[in-house]
Amino acid sequence: MTYPTALGSSTKDTITLLGHDLADDVMGEVGFGELAFWLATQRRPTPGETRVFEAVLAALADHGFTPTAIVTRLTHLSAPDSVQGALAAGLLGGGSRFLGVTEDCGQFLHAHLPGTVPTDDAGWDALALEVVRAQREAKRFVPGLGHPVHKDGDPRTRRLYAIAGQESLVGPHLQLFAAIGRVHPEVLGRTLPLNGAGVCGAALADLGLPLELLRGFALLARTAGLIGQLAEELRNPVARQIYDSVDLHNRPVDPVPYRPVPTAEELQ
Amino acid sequence: MTYPTALGSSTKDTITLLGHDLADDVMGEVGFGELAFWLATQRRPTPGETRVFEAVLAALADHGFTPTAIVTRLTHLSAPDSVQGALAAGLLGGGSRFLGVTEDCGQFLHAHLPGTVPTDDAGWDALALEVVRAQREAKRFVPGLGHPVHKDGDPRTRRLYAIAGQESLVGPHLQLFAAIGRVHPEVLGRTLPLNGAGVCGAALADLGLPLELLRGFALLARTAGLIGQLAEELRNPVARQIYDSVDLHNRPVDPVPYRPVPTAEELQ
Amino acid sequence: MTYPTALGSSTKDTITLLGHDLADDVMGEVGFGELAFWLATQRRPTPGETRVFEAVLAALADHGFTPTAIVTRLTHLSAPDSVQGALAAGLLGGGSRFLGVTEDCGQFLHAHLPGTVPTDDAGWDALALEVVRAQREAKRFVPGLGHPVHKDGDPRTRRLYAIAGQESLVGPHLQLFAAIGRVHPEVLGRTLPLNGAGVCGAALADLGLPLELLRGFALLARTAGLIGQLAEELRNPVARQIYDSVDLHNRPVDPVPYRPVPTAEELQ
Amino acid sequence: MTYPTALGSSTKDTITLLGHDLADDVMGEVGFGELAFWLATQRRPTPGETRVFEAVLAALADHGFTPTAIVTRLTHLSAPDSVQGALAAGLLGGGSRFLGVTEDCGQFLHAHLPGTVPTDDAGWDALALEVVRAQREAKRFVPGLGHPVHKDGDPRTRRLYAIAGQESLVGPHLQLFAAIGRVHPEVLGRTLPLNGAGVCGAALADLGLPLELLRGFALLARTAGLIGQLAEELRNPVARQIYDSVDLHNRPVDPVPYRPVPTAEELQ
Repeated sequence: MTYPTALGSSTKDTITLLGHDLADDVMGEVGFGELAFWLATQRRPTPGETRVFEAVLAALADHGFTPTAIVTRLTHLSAPDSVQGALAAGLLGGGSRFLGVTEDCGQFLHAHLPGTVPTDDAGWDALALEVVRAQREAKRFVPGLGHPVHKDGDPRTRRLYAIAGQESLVGPHLQLFAAIGRVHPEVLGRTLPLNGAGVCGAALADLGLPLELLRGFALLARTAGLIGQLAEELRNPVARQIYDSVDLHNRPVDPVPYRPVPTAEELQ
Repeated sequence: MTYPTALGSSTKDTITLLGHDLADDVMGEVGFGELAFWLATQRRPTPGETRVFEAVLAALADHGFTPTAIVTRLTHLSAPDSVQGALAAGLLGGGSRFLGVTEDCGQFLHAHLPGTVPTDDAGWDALALEVVRAQREAKRFVPGLGHPVHKDGDPRTRRLYAIAGQESLVGPHLQLFAAIGRVHPEVLGRTLPLNGAGVCGAALADLGLPLELLRGFALLARTAGLIGQLAEELRNPVARQIYDSVDLHNRPVDPVPYRPVPTAEELQ
Repeated sequence: MTYPTALGSSTKDTITLLGHDLADDVMGEVGFGELAFWLATQRRPTPGETRVFEAVLAALADHGFTPTAIVTRLTHLSAPDSVQGALAAGLLGGGSRFLGVTEDCGQFLHAHLPGTVPTDDAGWDALALEVVRAQREAKRFVPGLGHPVHKDGDPRTRRLYAIAGQESLVGPHLQLFAAIGRVHPEVLGRTLPLNGAGVCGAALADLGLPLELLRGFALLARTAGLIGQLAEELRNPVARQIYDSVDLHNRPVDPVPYRPVPTAEELQ
Repeated sequence: MTYPTALGSSTKDTITLLGHDLADDVMGEVGFGELAFWLATQRRPTPGETRVFEAVLAALADHGFTPTAIVTRLTHLSAPDSVQGALAAGLLGGGSRFLGVTEDCGQFLHAHLPGTVPTDDAGWDALALEVVRAQREAKRFVPGLGHPVHKDGDPRTRRLYAIAGQESLVGPHLQLFAAIGRVHPEVLGRTLPLNGAGVCGAALADLGLPLELLRGFALLARTAGLIGQLAEELRNPVARQIYDSVDLHNRPVDPVPYRPVPTAEELQ
């Protein structure tokens, strides 16, 4: 039995990564964003692809005191012996809700692309109308449409479209999402912003990154952010105050017995 | 703002848990399985409920060299400084596939219980027939039906039904699952065993434990198992050999560029 | 190559655990605390040992809104798709600070037991005096001595000694710790309580559990507590308020450039 | 109570990161390695610092079938529902042993730098001799000296010194480590290579990154590598074979009762 891999391997005198000499061809030659893209696709990105990819990572790296950031700080407070544990705990919050919109949006758009895509805005708008109407009929949200805070527009959205445009990398996912932005008021009766994290998912999908792992890139970005949170916590700690602000306001109440499922007796 | 809780709280001189004095009323008086049930439901289980619950935990505690056990041992090899990390890493494998059948089965059965449940085997069989036929038509499996190894019957199944019977705790979930065991050959054309981990889910649901957390009890059981794995690893280590058996058989291959999503150009 | 294990294994028709038939000899026969002890030591505990062990687990299961509990609730808020992630994140806080005293105290006491232990209180007191003095001279704390809240005595301490006494399981670790409780005022000039979590470590060490894994038993206890926290969160959620209470009080400040290490230039 | 932070914050219309407008000044303008450095130090690195930093990240991103990679693949096999869990599990192996040498080496070198550092090679050699001799007398290894595979020289070492030299970033940590490389044969009687992961720690320390978090940068690099491992696993799965290769070679053995600590009786 053998285990094939095109990633890292080494012999006594050489180390290769992705089929290249790690020391001479990768170190000092390949930026970290570029390398992360390459590792995920086994294809070296162009400078334009790298720029869009790194813009997405920047957009997702840190959003302040999110649950992931609070969790990393509290875990470090409780277990300062394990930096890896504090980072891993924070990443475990990168699931369906807070970081999920990136993956959900990219996958949603991909699932609604036809075999032959439109060639002009009118065509995209017609497709988008269909998509938004179908979601509304199914009483489902369009992933990535709307933002709890940036109600008049997410600054990251405009910027990411501009960057993708500069690099000629506005592909079908970004096209469809932009069209959704244009047509949804006609269906929903109000104007919602395109969520920046959702646009990130569209951009990642256009870059050809694995759709099953879009969440992974949000987690990569967040790892850098969580290291920043830990570094700030070490210099200017707040985790103890956060913990106290909860614990000192606990209010003991009586237990409320729980029985979600009627017993056989009760059912009869 | 206050944060209500009926779980642990303390003052300078007292500690309470679930509304009881921890030291005098819980320590030395309440077994660990009983306490875990109580914490999850805020209702103290009867001795019979405790026995069924602990039988389920025993059934799920350790299944040898599963991915979770291998992961805990390898993580300890790599990061011996953090017992919590090795246990957490193992638990992260307790997801939809290996430990998932317990939760999936309990939730599936619950979703198919009618408002008024049957009162005899014939009634259960009729309901089960309907359920199995609907799944077959939808080309879906019945969660908990079948086992990759115990093809002629999972020894835990027979035993858990016997224990639940002794304690008069065969409720509607176990009833429906048993009926599925009786009638499915008529629909599927072959006889499959009732998976022991699935029966555990049915039993947990009959005990009135939170359906959204059935997986949590499998993880609790597995925590005890993973501590056993770590203890054995400390005395009789195998993780290094496992690692070597993989790494020494790595086979470097050429990268295969990946582009799951056609570019805008290719689409046109 | 083979991987030996005395834990779980199975064939088509049988499942064994610790050399016993899982279905017939373990399920329904062995309590969960008893089983966890057995898995960790490969030795079935006596009823008395089980009672002390389960009293320790009860003492450590839940302490209200600790960092571990807050982390599990916040992670569930952020990633409700993964119960295993929420539990694992909470456990990662079980490190050197909040749950560490149990392990630290057990290991500290063990390291200070002589080859031949004292046979009466006077002997234990003399040993304890030596130990406390040596720590004071080294400007080190005695692990488990003192408690931030229960300054006049931790109710768990008295109770755990009583239970261990009833079961004739006051071994050398509990003896030495009790003596430290008696003599330390003579050295330190003030009276500190014996921390309940510390006594738990002494009791676990007396039970012959693996000293490298004492923290693991605190984590096992806490797994049950964290499931309780999740169950309460599902019924009576507070995580969103906790998150808001932090995020809404964030205060943007200017970056403070960090350079912990002088450059070569600055050093010269 | 307020929680100060210089990282991410937002209002309805703006998002800032590190005091800059995220959309206009960071996205599309700052590479991902550069941003990670900036987040950790709140200081924007120079292009030369970024190049050395990204060379370190490239050196540590992926080493093939390490325990961390195997763990991520096995966790995904077991719980494919949670990409965040698979990545977090892999990172939990980034502890004292496999990724630890980077942090250990950086911290060791830092602890042995005098207030005034040498100004020529002779001075560095004298300091290094002292350091190596002191370690030998204390029967301790010099962290980062030696490599299990690259016995005649780690290719990353030569290359990282070259890159740091090109960027004029050979600071005191790299100087001391180089001197250790020159003088240790005189003390130890044999020539050991400078471990590439150790050199990475020296370079990170010279860059002024937080010494307590050097391990964090290895984890950041590894996150990119683990995403690559997952992407490869999705296209060319091997985790099932790895699991089978262990499980099918399990060998049931009898339990061996464990009692690490003599009972009070046995001690007397």
